[in-house]
Amino acid sequence: MYIGVDIGGTNVTAGLVSIDGNILFQKSCPTLPSRGWDTVIQDIINLIRDVIEESPEDEEVLGIGIGVPGMADKKTGNVVNCVNLGWSDVPLGKTLEKEFNRPTYIDNDASVAALAEFENGALRGTQNSILITLGTGIGGGFIINGKLYSGTNNIGSEIGHVLVGKNFYNCNCGKNGCFETFASATALIRYTRKLIEETNEYTDIRKYIGDELDKLDAKTIFDCAKAGDKLALSSVNRLVDYLVIGITNLINLLDPEVIALGGGLSKAGDYLLELINDRIYEKILFKDMPYSKIVIAEHGNDAGIIGSAMLCKHS
Amino acid sequence: MYIGVDIGGTNVTAGLVSIDGNILFQKSCPTLPSRGWDTVIQDIINLIRDVIEESPEDEEVLGIGIGVPGMADKKTGNVVNCVNLGWSDVPLGKTLEKEFNRPTYIDNDASVAALAEFENGALRGTQNSILITLGTGIGGGFIINGKLYSGTNNIGSEIGHVLVGKNFYNCNCGKNGCFETFASATALIRYTRKLIEETNEYTDIRKYIGDELDKLDAKTIFDCAKAGDKLALSSVNRLVDYLVIGITNLINLLDPEVIALGGGLSKAGDYLLELINDRIYEKILFKDMPYSKIVIAEHGNDAGIIGSAMLCKHS
Repeated sequence: MYIGVDIGGTNVTAGLVSIDGNILFQKSCPTLPSRGWDTVIQDIINLIRDVIEESPEDEEVLGIGIGVPGMADKKTGNVVNCVNLGWSDVPLGKTLEKEFNRPTYIDNDASVAALAEFENGALRGTQNSILITLGTGIGGGFIINGKLYSGTNNIGSEIGHVLVGKNFYNCNCGKNGCFETFASATALIRYTRKLIEETNEYTDIRKYIGDELDKLDAKTIFDCAKAGDKLALSSVNRLVDYLVIGITNLINLLDPEVIALGGGLSKAGDYLLELINDRIYEKILFKDMPYSKIVIAEHGNDAGIIGSAMLCKHS
Repeated sequence: MYIGVDIGGTNVTAGLVSIDGNILFQKSCPTLPSRGWDTVIQDIINLIRDVIEESPEDEEVLGIGIGVPGMADKKTGNVVNCVNLGWSDVPLGKTLEKEFNRPTYIDNDASVAALAEFENGALRGTQNSILITLGTGIGGGFIINGKLYSGTNNIGSEIGHVLVGKNFYNCNCGKNGCFETFASATALIRYTRKLIEETNEYTDIRKYIGDELDKLDAKTIFDCAKAGDKLALSSVNRLVDYLVIGITNLINLLDPEVIALGGGLSKAGDYLLELINDRIYEKILFKDMPYSKIVIAEHGNDAGIIGSAMLCKHS
């Protein structure tokens, strides 16, 4: 039995997770990161304590795993940098290890989510596979030769920042052309807004958002596209074109068995998969060879808890 | 002691290679692929026989490794597809294994070259590293967790066909925007030719090629750029911009310890390295973390023989 802790900008969730990756109990609290590291870490400690108290007496909690929305140093346990928590070089791993006297592991949230899918989700049974999280940004987690792979300095699998072209706005990282500025939920919203503002084309989207462009969201755009709205369709089509570029780049480089799509945009499900699969073949290099299966990730919001717990098993 | 066979479009070279990757003897013959598989394979058999005869009597030839400029099936030993040899699904591995009664291994030439650099060249001692071959096209070989990695179906590490933008001509593979159409020797020559044809700008290049644009080559362009020629410099600068994009994409995805540059363009050596290193930092995502060292590959033309021989050791 492990503890998995999923630290997000909005909520922290800790869960009691069985050795084969099932959540037995979970509890959340708001992160409120503006209160600063000292306060937030105290909340996290209390949360973990509550969860440990729920563990069956005859089963030992073997370790604590933590997923953070930023850069973690697996060796020291420090969070190197976490922009939306305002953390820079904080000793998260060591603090929890000392507090609970159990082995503690830490990694990036997208890597952790890939590990959850690998344990008992869409990537199970694979040797080489990839999770792409399509949300506000784009994250990635790689399974290579049956193990989580994050590179030499733990700065790898940053799928969202692969440069794939030139775009009309810069990425948060400062560069122009990052994959996530074309293919994330944010990208879809920004491009749709641009189309609405710059063209006079009629679109049903206006109806749903009551003409308030700040209310634009990915679900509305996808729903309108599905219903045949021309402007929504052209926005979704651009997103899919770039998704296909990002995915085939990964196939041509890493040739994984399975690529799973997670994060908010993956809720578009089969509709999105079909659009992608229709266009992948033309961009594949070796047309006569088998290539990656593209699927929707299975764990949704639970991926963070399951995957961080699984760090204890697979580290 | 192993036999390494480097099959190219122009020549086939076979070499006797020590267990630690040193070439003891080598012999070549022209490939002349238009003669067809039956004739070429007979020449390769004769070449290997000649090389085996040169092996010291007290040392056994333990295996035969083969590098091909195309797609090989490691399991069956077949060459799946080799455009510039005109081979499609030919039983290269099995034929040589039967003829010489020794274990026989086969892989793509860029993967094989990476293995040579990993054994005793620029990638030695690394756990995760990449060789990029910058020639007519761009090839790639990945070392991941201390082993050659080519993916699930052996179609990975195709660095040259990662899409990085839109270009003024299509790639041989049919797509637009492949990395090799921006950053190979061919790309440098085509873009320079375009500049010469479309602008009236004076350039020293014209002097060197006697105004015959078909004689343009990468070395002349680099030499003129080094000497300060404005047109040559703008062509080299574009090449370097895209090389930096391709390299940082690999860093952001795979975070290797070392990236080695091989192939014809790597002869520009320190001049090229300096241009690249000047521009990499701005495209790196995590500015405070260590990142890949970029170096020139060490084995030059010998990489094919050494690397294919090393398939016997590392498979």
